[in-house]
Amino acid sequence: MLRKLGAELIGTFWLVLGGCGSAVLAAHFADVGIGLLGVSLAFGLTVVTMAYAIGPISGCHLNPAVSLGLCVGGRFPLSQLAPYVLAQVLGGLLAGAALYAIASGAVGFDSLKGFAANGYGEHSPGGYSLQAVLLCELLLTAFFLFIIMGVTDQEAPAGFAPLAIGLALTLIHLISIPVSNTSVNPARSLAVAVFAGPWALNQLWLFWVAPLAGGALGAMVYRVLRGR
Amino acid sequence: MLRKLGAELIGTFWLVLGGCGSAVLAAHFADVGIGLLGVSLAFGLTVVTMAYAIGPISGCHLNPAVSLGLCVGGRFPLSQLAPYVLAQVLGGLLAGAALYAIASGAVGFDSLKGFAANGYGEHSPGGYSLQAVLLCELLLTAFFLFIIMGVTDQEAPAGFAPLAIGLALTLIHLISIPVSNTSVNPARSLAVAVFAGPWALNQLWLFWVAPLAGGALGAMVYRVLRGR
Amino acid sequence: MLRKLGAELIGTFWLVLGGCGSAVLAAHFADVGIGLLGVSLAFGLTVVTMAYAIGPISGCHLNPAVSLGLCVGGRFPLSQLAPYVLAQVLGGLLAGAALYAIASGAVGFDSLKGFAANGYGEHSPGGYSLQAVLLCELLLTAFFLFIIMGVTDQEAPAGFAPLAIGLALTLIHLISIPVSNTSVNPARSLAVAVFAGPWALNQLWLFWVAPLAGGALGAMVYRVLRGR
Amino acid sequence: MLRKLGAELIGTFWLVLGGCGSAVLAAHFADVGIGLLGVSLAFGLTVVTMAYAIGPISGCHLNPAVSLGLCVGGRFPLSQLAPYVLAQVLGGLLAGAALYAIASGAVGFDSLKGFAANGYGEHSPGGYSLQAVLLCELLLTAFFLFIIMGVTDQEAPAGFAPLAIGLALTLIHLISIPVSNTSVNPARSLAVAVFAGPWALNQLWLFWVAPLAGGALGAMVYRVLRGR
Repeated sequence: MLRKLGAELIGTFWLVLGGCGSAVLAAHFADVGIGLLGVSLAFGLTVVTMAYAIGPISGCHLNPAVSLGLCVGGRFPLSQLAPYVLAQVLGGLLAGAALYAIASGAVGFDSLKGFAANGYGEHSPGGYSLQAVLLCELLLTAFFLFIIMGVTDQEAPAGFAPLAIGLALTLIHLISIPVSNTSVNPARSLAVAVFAGPWALNQLWLFWVAPLAGGALGAMVYRVLRGR
Repeated sequence: MLRKLGAELIGTFWLVLGGCGSAVLAAHFADVGIGLLGVSLAFGLTVVTMAYAIGPISGCHLNPAVSLGLCVGGRFPLSQLAPYVLAQVLGGLLAGAALYAIASGAVGFDSLKGFAANGYGEHSPGGYSLQAVLLCELLLTAFFLFIIMGVTDQEAPAGFAPLAIGLALTLIHLISIPVSNTSVNPARSLAVAVFAGPWALNQLWLFWVAPLAGGALGAMVYRVLRGR
Repeated sequence: MLRKLGAELIGTFWLVLGGCGSAVLAAHFADVGIGLLGVSLAFGLTVVTMAYAIGPISGCHLNPAVSLGLCVGGRFPLSQLAPYVLAQVLGGLLAGAALYAIASGAVGFDSLKGFAANGYGEHSPGGYSLQAVLLCELLLTAFFLFIIMGVTDQEAPAGFAPLAIGLALTLIHLISIPVSNTSVNPARSLAVAVFAGPWALNQLWLFWVAPLAGGALGAMVYRVLRGR
Repeated sequence: MLRKLGAELIGTFWLVLGGCGSAVLAAHFADVGIGLLGVSLAFGLTVVTMAYAIGPISGCHLNPAVSLGLCVGGRFPLSQLAPYVLAQVLGGLLAGAALYAIASGAVGFDSLKGFAANGYGEHSPGGYSLQAVLLCELLLTAFFLFIIMGVTDQEAPAGFAPLAIGLALTLIHLISIPVSNTSVNPARSLAVAVFAGPWALNQLWLFWVAPLAGGALGAMVYRVLRGR
């Protein structure tokens, strides 16, 4: 069990360092920044790479909404939910701190300019309302879990699940960064909110509620569809 | 059968939400928008992710031109064509509505500015004529079905078909978004035309005729080439 | 044999329509064009998709330099080289014509503005000299064939060769579009040179000589390295 | 053994030619340059393509930090470390020279404008301090080796390791090009430093120390986590 929690901690560290790190350090760089497309790819690749590396150890959830969804989907024991979520939260926070240490090494750095935190209303990148952000995060996390349930089904071709799941996360970011900066992952939201100023912590509730509810919903829909 | 139709409905919802959603919400965002490259990737990834997730359930067509082409190619029973198409159309329309709900949550949203609808002549993004759009959609859907027939052939390496088919859709978008906004999928065209204003509905016929004819043609060419 | 030649013709049509088509139609489109990155991806994906689709039929060369290199590498009979090259050239030319038909359907189209033709000196996109272009095309085609020989070796993991070869072509374009517009494929160069004006035909010799010599060299180096 | 060293030399040549070549030749090209996203993809694809091609021959390290890390991880004999590193260094330097020959064929070329060399402080692309660059290179190389150890573990799905490792290198570049121009590979840093002017050689020590230490650390952490 300690091995699994260590893997989740390291993996979530990588997700936050890679995903939020690319957003903070490289998205807007000069005329050659990677933009939202590069950030979307980075988030997805953190999952692709870690899922191949630690999938056999912990299943590579890296996300409380995934762990909860897999419980609801009958693939993960409820008794391990709390320790998994704790390891994910801790790994994310450590990555947020490491990213802060790197990012603050540049002249003119100001973490209050966002630090890749999620937000709605005036803190949504594109000014999307609370309702739109809620619907978007709920829907996208539901599809994320539906896909995860499907591609890890025993009938799915073996070996491709990490690729499909990571690319699903890339796709989710391609759709929704302008809406909410894309969470679908409460641990990722918490990890940078603590460095981005009070507004991010005030709005954090939505990025726990919507992904967790969406994740549970998506896993349930898959179960109903399969009839088992 | 209900299970298959449910999978097609959910899958086509994802294709429209992901593909058209990325176009509407993220393509032009500020200085870091994902552009046509990001939209092309998004369309392809909706198919990659869903084909791994629901391929074993319904075959993951998500597109009336694919279902018709596979009929012509001898891979799909004609008796299931109508219900599949209905499920795809319904899933697409629901996704159009969901996307409308999210997109309208931003200040200054105006669905009449396109909403990712397909068009020709003055409604082609690059001002391409009806003839050019017709030829382009016909050719690209023909190649799409040729590739689908080939990569799902029993001699093709197992497990890679979802990746190859999704990346084919990405490639098709890389070529033709400036020409027609890229359809090759009547369900996708209908799903957003109803929100984009009367011109989109007036031009919709082409995005049913050309993909359906092209899909049938491509599957037929493959069959002739294989001699079976 | 007719089946193989049909597959090579269709496949090379796709390579030119997809690769050169994305360059002509989408690379510079408004503020959201796909740029050289999108064009690089498009060229690679034509090979990824076709190699999974027709690999079992013809081997999916789509390129005289590949066919020649595989002869030198001991993987392809010399007796089939000429018909393969003819099918590739014909498929490419038909695609050039189809692309011309589509592209000329937009107001203000002028094929003399390049039409994705390859060039050196004043016709190199970045003004690279004949010597630099020659070295670049020779080196890149050599590595292309070295990689093709390696990933189709019986010791390489099965099923991944189409992906690796297509991504190698993407990488080659990421490096060298500014140098020569990237050929590494005589059939692709010829296919668009005939539409791009006299200069392109005058410079065409280099894009047959360098890729063919490079392809032979790369296959030979692989053979020496493997000692068989 | 000679076969292995030849493979490492050729592979590292490809890594430097492809990765640094795309940066020097294509990153900033006109309005359609590939940017940091394209360069990140190029670096990753050099590894994807070569790992499928020469993985069965030499293991495809292409990087002294990888070779050292795999020693620490118990996967590579210490006795072969020195010859591997020499072959990598030599291959990289030859690629640097070839790239110089190509790049200098354009009017107005000036290798002192960077030539893709790594740097810190005033030579960091984004002006990051020595400490930030050190932490970043150490962390990213540690994760690189952690992932390499994981995806080549016997429990990981077969055949996907080259893809996962290459995409990990893409991700690492998506995060850190603005910080240090991204090394995580002492041979790559040396290969271009010799052409970029005295400052690059003066700062080269960091891009040997940090990747080597990080690689050893990451492999060690993986070993502790697995308990073997």
